[in-house]
Amino acid sequence: MTAVFGHLNPDTDAITAALVYASFLRRTGREAQAYRLGEPNRETEFVLRTAGVDLPPLLDSLPEDSAVALVDHNESSQSLPSLATLNVTHVVDHHKLGDLATNVPVYLRFEPLGSTGTILAKLHREANLPIEQTDARLLLSAILSDTLHFRSPTTTPEDREVATYLAQIAGIADVSAYAGGMFAAKSDLGDIAAEKLLKMDYKVFEFAGRPYGLGVVETTNPGYVFGRKAELLSAMDQEKAKSHLAGVVLSVVDILNETNRTLVLSATEELMLREAFGANIEDGVADLGSRISRKKQIVPVLEAYFEGQ
Amino acid sequence: MTAVFGHLNPDTDAITAALVYASFLRRTGREAQAYRLGEPNRETEFVLRTAGVDLPPLLDSLPEDSAVALVDHNESSQSLPSLATLNVTHVVDHHKLGDLATNVPVYLRFEPLGSTGTILAKLHREANLPIEQTDARLLLSAILSDTLHFRSPTTTPEDREVATYLAQIAGIADVSAYAGGMFAAKSDLGDIAAEKLLKMDYKVFEFAGRPYGLGVVETTNPGYVFGRKAELLSAMDQEKAKSHLAGVVLSVVDILNETNRTLVLSATEELMLREAFGANIEDGVADLGSRISRKKQIVPVLEAYFEGQ
Repeated sequence: MTAVFGHLNPDTDAITAALVYASFLRRTGREAQAYRLGEPNRETEFVLRTAGVDLPPLLDSLPEDSAVALVDHNESSQSLPSLATLNVTHVVDHHKLGDLATNVPVYLRFEPLGSTGTILAKLHREANLPIEQTDARLLLSAILSDTLHFRSPTTTPEDREVATYLAQIAGIADVSAYAGGMFAAKSDLGDIAAEKLLKMDYKVFEFAGRPYGLGVVETTNPGYVFGRKAELLSAMDQEKAKSHLAGVVLSVVDILNETNRTLVLSATEELMLREAFGANIEDGVADLGSRISRKKQIVPVLEAYFEGQ
Repeated sequence: MTAVFGHLNPDTDAITAALVYASFLRRTGREAQAYRLGEPNRETEFVLRTAGVDLPPLLDSLPEDSAVALVDHNESSQSLPSLATLNVTHVVDHHKLGDLATNVPVYLRFEPLGSTGTILAKLHREANLPIEQTDARLLLSAILSDTLHFRSPTTTPEDREVATYLAQIAGIADVSAYAGGMFAAKSDLGDIAAEKLLKMDYKVFEFAGRPYGLGVVETTNPGYVFGRKAELLSAMDQEKAKSHLAGVVLSVVDILNETNRTLVLSATEELMLREAFGANIEDGVADLGSRISRKKQIVPVLEAYFEGQ
């Protein structure tokens, strides 16, 4: 039995990719079960609810040497804490290759595309396996979520083409209206605790050997998030201490206007953002302009910055 | 322009994969040029000569940040020495994932199959791109070479199936006879210097942070190789000193009888082979039984052995 899961603090791509890839593995003759490594955000809840699909079970540990398939991530800091004791047999991802290494040959499929969903749709096509209607809906949702409905610079022509194909199978005639529903659900943050808001789409990266927490809130209503700035800074401070991080930032991405204004906790993060991005910083908020993709516009810049130190 | 190349001390899979993947990239709209990182062995010369294909040019360096596609390898110790300064955009491989990491998302296609040639044939099928007759011949040769005509335990049903398909396109009716010709060419070692014999299929691996050189001679005539034992041990000793290695071994694989008898240089290698494999060692030759695949039966065992130290 292969356990299939996406990253910690799962987003729509991480959860739908686990569900669809587990189904793909089963349909191609392997026993597989989808899991999640955390609570879904409201966008993902909306996607699963409207698709009539149950959440995959929460996973916190597995017996040593269990076979696992990673989707939508490959770095140990974003995975099950016991990953080093497990047997990674498959990885399907669209992120940079981090600290993954294996003792034996395995299956890896990485493509620089907008979402893992796009790659999974291609895997079905290549295997001449028809995509089921529900799976098409899940994969389309992943593409719309990760590319912010094609607004993100991570969007490729292949993402658009595959999304059109999936929308037909899923029977979603008005993709814009559906994406609007997803983003409205994601932006409905009313009663979420500040710690949860910080962790909703949050990943830890190693730069120059030290861990940094990079959170993102994608919302159609950034004013609401900035209204909770004091609470959020306190949550960031707690998390930095608790997890022994070198820095924590929280990017508030305005989905509709495609801007990124990032909450800065202390002088450490301020220096990093000013030097790495030349960012203008006022009242603890760094203006990162139109850098709305953490993967493509934030992480590589920080990596280059720390490598040059 | 993307430079496409296989590993140092190239074998048939490394050279044909570079040729065919460069052609695949060109046919899918990217400028690409195949290279090799060393001299071909006699089997590869036989394959290219009978296919009427020129050797790709030798590569020893590239300008910083050049785009490169790696085939049939991914570890820096087996690649261009300046790999860290280059921009890896594609990797197609069937080995374990080593120390590769990237700053941005890239294209990776790894499968635990018998040869890179099998994966490349699948890429053509998936892209609905007909495989040209010469390319089919090259890919078939790679599969036959890496799997020792399906004798190696690395052979999968997919390798056999793809080989049958390629033989039809290549117009090779008697695959056994063709493989026999390849192995005879490979075993014709008459005037090769001992240093070249050692390096013909030779890779450096890191175990517990220290470099070990693992050479393999696949031959239908092991008696010839053991007849040159003294010369070979001297070449191994020189190489160990020159390249600051922790150990050097040379496995002599009898292709037809599927056995591995390995030349042991000193007490260091003797201890390692005895403890890792429980090998019986006499007169500086370790009997490794039917372990004929370095990738599947030698490297993982050594890795586990050194991890347990």
